[in-house]
Amino acid sequence: MSKINELKAKYKSYVDEMLLYGHCGYVLSWDMETEAPNGSVNDRSKYLGELSKKGFQIVMNPDYINTINSLLEYSTLDKITRHGCELAKIGYDKIKNIPENEYVEFQVLLGQSQHIWGQAKRSNNFELFKPYLKKIVEFKRKEIAYRTTADKKGYDILLDDFEPNLTQKTCDKFFDYLRANLVPYINKITKSKTNEKPAFVTAKYNLDKQRKFSRTLMKSLCFDNERGVIKESEHPFTSNFNNTDVRFTVHYYEKDFLSAIFSCLHELGHATYEQQIDSSLNNTVCSGGVSMVVHESQSRMYENIIGRSKEYWQVYYPKLQRMFKANLGNVSLDEFIAAINTVEKTLIRIEADEMTYPLHIMVRYELERDLMSGKLEVDNIEQAWNKKIKDYLGIDVPSVALGVLQDVHWSGGMIGYFPTYAIGSAYAAQLFAMMSKDIDIPASLAKGNTKQINKWLKEKIHRFGSTKYPNEILHDACGDLDPKYYVDYLIGKHKDK
Amino acid sequence: MSKINELKAKYKSYVDEMLLYGHCGYVLSWDMETEAPNGSVNDRSKYLGELSKKGFQIVMNPDYINTINSLLEYSTLDKITRHGCELAKIGYDKIKNIPENEYVEFQVLLGQSQHIWGQAKRSNNFELFKPYLKKIVEFKRKEIAYRTTADKKGYDILLDDFEPNLTQKTCDKFFDYLRANLVPYINKITKSKTNEKPAFVTAKYNLDKQRKFSRTLMKSLCFDNERGVIKESEHPFTSNFNNTDVRFTVHYYEKDFLSAIFSCLHELGHATYEQQIDSSLNNTVCSGGVSMVVHESQSRMYENIIGRSKEYWQVYYPKLQRMFKANLGNVSLDEFIAAINTVEKTLIRIEADEMTYPLHIMVRYELERDLMSGKLEVDNIEQAWNKKIKDYLGIDVPSVALGVLQDVHWSGGMIGYFPTYAIGSAYAAQLFAMMSKDIDIPASLAKGNTKQINKWLKEKIHRFGSTKYPNEILHDACGDLDPKYYVDYLIGKHKDK
Repeated sequence: MSKINELKAKYKSYVDEMLLYGHCGYVLSWDMETEAPNGSVNDRSKYLGELSKKGFQIVMNPDYINTINSLLEYSTLDKITRHGCELAKIGYDKIKNIPENEYVEFQVLLGQSQHIWGQAKRSNNFELFKPYLKKIVEFKRKEIAYRTTADKKGYDILLDDFEPNLTQKTCDKFFDYLRANLVPYINKITKSKTNEKPAFVTAKYNLDKQRKFSRTLMKSLCFDNERGVIKESEHPFTSNFNNTDVRFTVHYYEKDFLSAIFSCLHELGHATYEQQIDSSLNNTVCSGGVSMVVHESQSRMYENIIGRSKEYWQVYYPKLQRMFKANLGNVSLDEFIAAINTVEKTLIRIEADEMTYPLHIMVRYELERDLMSGKLEVDNIEQAWNKKIKDYLGIDVPSVALGVLQDVHWSGGMIGYFPTYAIGSAYAAQLFAMMSKDIDIPASLAKGNTKQINKWLKEKIHRFGSTKYPNEILHDACGDLDPKYYVDYLIGKHKDK
Repeated sequence: MSKINELKAKYKSYVDEMLLYGHCGYVLSWDMETEAPNGSVNDRSKYLGELSKKGFQIVMNPDYINTINSLLEYSTLDKITRHGCELAKIGYDKIKNIPENEYVEFQVLLGQSQHIWGQAKRSNNFELFKPYLKKIVEFKRKEIAYRTTADKKGYDILLDDFEPNLTQKTCDKFFDYLRANLVPYINKITKSKTNEKPAFVTAKYNLDKQRKFSRTLMKSLCFDNERGVIKESEHPFTSNFNNTDVRFTVHYYEKDFLSAIFSCLHELGHATYEQQIDSSLNNTVCSGGVSMVVHESQSRMYENIIGRSKEYWQVYYPKLQRMFKANLGNVSLDEFIAAINTVEKTLIRIEADEMTYPLHIMVRYELERDLMSGKLEVDNIEQAWNKKIKDYLGIDVPSVALGVLQDVHWSGGMIGYFPTYAIGSAYAAQLFAMMSKDIDIPASLAKGNTKQINKWLKEKIHRFGSTKYPNEILHDACGDLDPKYYVDYLIGKHKDK
């Protein structure tokens, strides 16, 4: 065997072992979230921990790292292997300079802090969580220092963890545009509005019928049941292993039927992406969706741009009406469309509508950025949060549970994650605008499925899996991020009503 | 650390790793059987194969074996560790003398032969499967030769694989008694019978209501939902990891509601056993049920002795009737009890009633025994099968699909397995007779649950897990196997009707 083939064989055997642990972790986690009995949770967590330890041992194994470095020296190395090696090297470089004892300490801290955050939120007591958040911020600042290079420094380092190559400069420019254009518009349109929901929105809807309607939605988005599963869990999510096994969950509420519909469409966006990745990438390290932003751009396009459009519901609303005659028999399509597209200033991010959502993200982004630069300290974060909510959304925050404590992310050490939600939504609008040039979307949706849309997205985004950097894929598909598309879409949609 | 503690720590780290692979295999298999999409089956099989390879590598690791042998030299070794080491040594000794290439060849053969068996059964063509069965028998004969010791030889070696310490001598004595006492009795009582089933047995029963009734059965047997799951699969089974995670499946048929009821009770027998094993054994190699015979003794006691008794249904039949008024409204408890306790000579083992069931096993036992001794060859097995079915059940076998090809076991190399079904049933009767001396079973069942019965079985059988040999546990609970209990129970029950 030639030297390069020897190295490739060695690399493959490491990758195969990581994929084995990854596959086991995938099934064990899915099982834990969807059906494992309560009594088994301790054992399960232990084994999940052992699996990730085994994976970590390979990632940090000097022989594995040497193999990767040696392979990267060959200019003849095939593109996919090269990209996989590069990603592995980047992953290793991220942690190699963090002292092991500090890293371990931080993992222990995170285990506790998520638990404490839950307590603090339930008892509406920020003081309980504050010392943990302080330690997390302190670690993250030190982590930045350890990881600073000529190319990357500050908050950029954390942004890059969740979205490769995303920078503070890009985010600042993006949110500046939103602040200047969206905040005054929302202020204007919400001034004279009443916030009462139509009765049919909060009426009771039979759970089994809701489940059945999810099947209709799945069919409309061309979900392949031979390579996927739908199930239920407390919080909806999508997970997958190769394009042959893509699973998602929905949570059904009797008195909030819209929740299941839109979380189903959202997760179907993630799932469609994963199901359409090229089969040749199965069982490689590039077999999954490439990043948070790209994933959110897909889920939000299906959930919001398509899933809240009149074109889509022209076909599906009559079916929904037939299924829930008592509740929807006298509700017209236009009334339904209006109800699923209201704009309202509210306190909770995950319940926010499409238009106000990015302002919630902007608040979190600015706070994170300032925490990392040292401009803001945890002692002042509650006041800073409340002020920004007042400035951007014009409402007073009545409690920390409805304010700074509402999200789980920071307690899990995830600083740098939030921006991906808003930037993903923005890319959804930008991609959709590009797609509209190539295909007649309303005519396509009138056929009752997203076949043509899926095809376009597969060609431009999905098929690549993780074989390129996310910004490359997005750039090739729709150019550099331009928040104008997003704001134009949001405002245009509202004006049309 | 003392030498023994060093060895114990080393042993524990091997065991922990095996338990990790075991736990992953448990969840992956469960998922594959109950919900994984069809498209994922190839990947899944591959990863299951890799997990068992990893487990096997430890079992055959010389350092592991040395550790075990060294530990066994310490007289101060605690009982549970000693027993675990002994079992490991026995497991290793079983394969150490089989040449590796032959062992691997055999595994490949089994992979093919199960597939071919399916084809042969579907096309009713024994010739297709015959060459594979010949090779399997040939390997098993050679395996016996390789594994023969001063203590163990012949068919005993294979019996021991499925039921430690079970011997041909025990089986011969057992089946001789059945042949002498059960065959003539069944002949007598089935002479004048018509085989028509009452209409309510084959009527249509709503599947969702059947599912709901399974919940009632689970409650009646005190199944702990906090440490277990019920689900559906093609063939019902129970699987488990520790007493904290015990799962079973049922298959529902619209036109055979009794199938789901009795398979649910059967699997609940297995599940109750696993849920009642002592918690201190969790995460050791002794945490599961000890053997096939002991497991079947539990599942068949709950399914047949309790589950087909008037005492049990006195409480539950009114509930069943209420749920299926149209079908059962005019069927009395006595008619229902008669219908679930009919005796009928039939061709298919898995559909056989409680009384004729052991005769089906006897046929297979005698054929296996004679194949292994060389008294019978595969070329004559079809004729031998048909003759025995005629001799014991008095019926002609119309096709190989309904005859010698009906069971999957031999195609999977499982020679020595069948007797455990019948001996398990016999122990069920013997244990039940002992239990009747200690507790008032009818009074206990009148309370609507098996709490007292579970308690007795936990004390005598369940709690030990695999910390003793199965014959020890059974001996301590009810003495040596005496088929008279079994035959007396079967005949007595029938006479009572």
